[in-house]
Amino acid sequence: MSKLKNDTFLRALLREPVPYTPIWMMRQAGRYLPEYNQTRSRAGSFLSLCKNPDLATEVTLQPLARFPLDAAILFSDILTVPDAMGLGLYFAEGEGPKFERPLRDEWEIKNLASPDPVVHLRYVMDAVSQIRKSLDDSVPLIGFSGSPFTLACYMIEGGSSSDFLHTKTMLYRRPELLHHILEINARAVADYLNAQIEHGAQAVMIFDSWGGALSEAAYAEFSLAYLERIVSMLHKKHDGAKVPSIVFTKGGGLWIEKIASIGCDAVGLDWTMDIGRARRLVGDKVALQGNLDPLVLFAEPAQIVKEAEKVLESFGHGSGHVFNLGHGISQYTNPDHAAVLIETVRSSSRKYHEVASQ
Amino acid sequence: MSKLKNDTFLRALLREPVPYTPIWMMRQAGRYLPEYNQTRSRAGSFLSLCKNPDLATEVTLQPLARFPLDAAILFSDILTVPDAMGLGLYFAEGEGPKFERPLRDEWEIKNLASPDPVVHLRYVMDAVSQIRKSLDDSVPLIGFSGSPFTLACYMIEGGSSSDFLHTKTMLYRRPELLHHILEINARAVADYLNAQIEHGAQAVMIFDSWGGALSEAAYAEFSLAYLERIVSMLHKKHDGAKVPSIVFTKGGGLWIEKIASIGCDAVGLDWTMDIGRARRLVGDKVALQGNLDPLVLFAEPAQIVKEAEKVLESFGHGSGHVFNLGHGISQYTNPDHAAVLIETVRSSSRKYHEVASQ
Repeated sequence: MSKLKNDTFLRALLREPVPYTPIWMMRQAGRYLPEYNQTRSRAGSFLSLCKNPDLATEVTLQPLARFPLDAAILFSDILTVPDAMGLGLYFAEGEGPKFERPLRDEWEIKNLASPDPVVHLRYVMDAVSQIRKSLDDSVPLIGFSGSPFTLACYMIEGGSSSDFLHTKTMLYRRPELLHHILEINARAVADYLNAQIEHGAQAVMIFDSWGGALSEAAYAEFSLAYLERIVSMLHKKHDGAKVPSIVFTKGGGLWIEKIASIGCDAVGLDWTMDIGRARRLVGDKVALQGNLDPLVLFAEPAQIVKEAEKVLESFGHGSGHVFNLGHGISQYTNPDHAAVLIETVRSSSRKYHEVASQ
Repeated sequence: MSKLKNDTFLRALLREPVPYTPIWMMRQAGRYLPEYNQTRSRAGSFLSLCKNPDLATEVTLQPLARFPLDAAILFSDILTVPDAMGLGLYFAEGEGPKFERPLRDEWEIKNLASPDPVVHLRYVMDAVSQIRKSLDDSVPLIGFSGSPFTLACYMIEGGSSSDFLHTKTMLYRRPELLHHILEINARAVADYLNAQIEHGAQAVMIFDSWGGALSEAAYAEFSLAYLERIVSMLHKKHDGAKVPSIVFTKGGGLWIEKIASIGCDAVGLDWTMDIGRARRLVGDKVALQGNLDPLVLFAEPAQIVKEAEKVLESFGHGSGHVFNLGHGISQYTNPDHAAVLIETVRSSSRKYHEVASQ
């Protein structure tokens, strides 16, 4: 059983009563923190930082030392799985992730294999164990992975893309090939997340960064179906404690009712959809995580307070809300502004969790 | 009165009976056509092509010579208005539009002035007149502009952006400054579109390429309010004929009911929302334009036929649908595949327009 000192985050995901709305921030261990940049320069590169469990632990804990956050998230990349499949992940300066060997050839696709996370992603498991130990049950640790479709986009394009020309060409021309990749990816992501759970992750999140680039029908067939498959394969409990799952499709607001129906405990929301409206659509099915525009943190503190309070008010009374940004925090954010946000959510949310006395 | 040989497009926008669903394609005069590339290389650059009415007329007509399209669209750029305001539009090879003098300084913002379209955008008016004359009433001519918010994004950022850091910083920190820019832009766009109508445009479309990057509340305040203001200022009739207006917010599916309520005749849809669902949400308020994923054109012809028919079927029976892609056609598209799409829409749509005989 969990001996967590602060389990507000897990309870909110399970829609159990909480004293305040918990908050963490996507990319909370990142370049907006000077201490992160120092560790990263010691590591040499983003990828060697990910692959060094000591340093990954160090940066995971940095935002928690600064701010009263309600969860830690494993410091890693969403593309570790295809890297472990042998595609050769690298980061060109200022260009985002790339693969040395993009997946285009039918023979290579047919030979794609799901990695054994404990062997091929050992460094991640070591980081999870070490972070969990260092957290000493202060707050829960979130494990994560990219979604099968998002991984496939990067694997096929070889990097970021504005239109996903190669991926969508395969989708419309050779759908069976894309389905083959997605099946392998789904199995790999489920194994990977389960291994993270076994090594200490207390909740897991799947980042579907590019599902929002699909049509409604293609999203259901090529992204959501595989998210559902993964969720059904995830450990629901570990070590006597429930392990909630969060599914986040950026740009998925239009499909939120469908996403809420795949068996996950919570749905991540970007900032484009009003969270109160989202709540009315999903009802009691899931918790919601989000959804302040990360660029709000470029406003003056008084305005940050106002915008954060609008999100809290829009969600309204009761549990089932994990406050977050609608996307990763910008590297240009002033850390003091993040502090204002976190403090506001902590203090202003209490009134939404008071139980009426009779 | 209109003596148009083919007024299917205008009638569909006004939800009047039509024999088939009309089609045109965003960016139909573009780099996927070899004849376009030839004219463009004669012009020297994209911008000199836009600014030369003879050549702009030539490329506008090229797709109509190839395909039985139901409308022509002025060949121009969405950023001509801020260029006429003196910001210095240019195109860096492979990088999209940029401004030499981005708008950041408060003094410059306060001194921003709406250009006189007939003077400062003379080349556009000349192109409109010349294209209209060359079309010889075969199909209607669409005029267009970028939306106030989209223009503001480019003006403030100085080019494309992934997060609109400068624009959103102004939005959250100095909203009155952004509103000032948007007011000037709204007046300028309305004047510009009305001048296009006076010179021969028979329908107008406003491209809100970046409104979808906003939160629900910010979209209403900083984009939709100005779209509504423009629509209210547009000439509703010219030369005895109605001039329908189309508003297209990319990524605006979540807000389609609000967009349909601002007085425009039609709403453009990107490919992420099922068009039948959109129709159920907007009811009889507006026509819908869209919304095939442009990447479908990379499939084999049989699959293109299938995907186009799905969009037609999803919209269903009756008028009020203008077929289009959900975004501009990719430069890598095989023109023969565009022909397959256009032929399919023409032939397969007739059954949705048959009037039941009694």
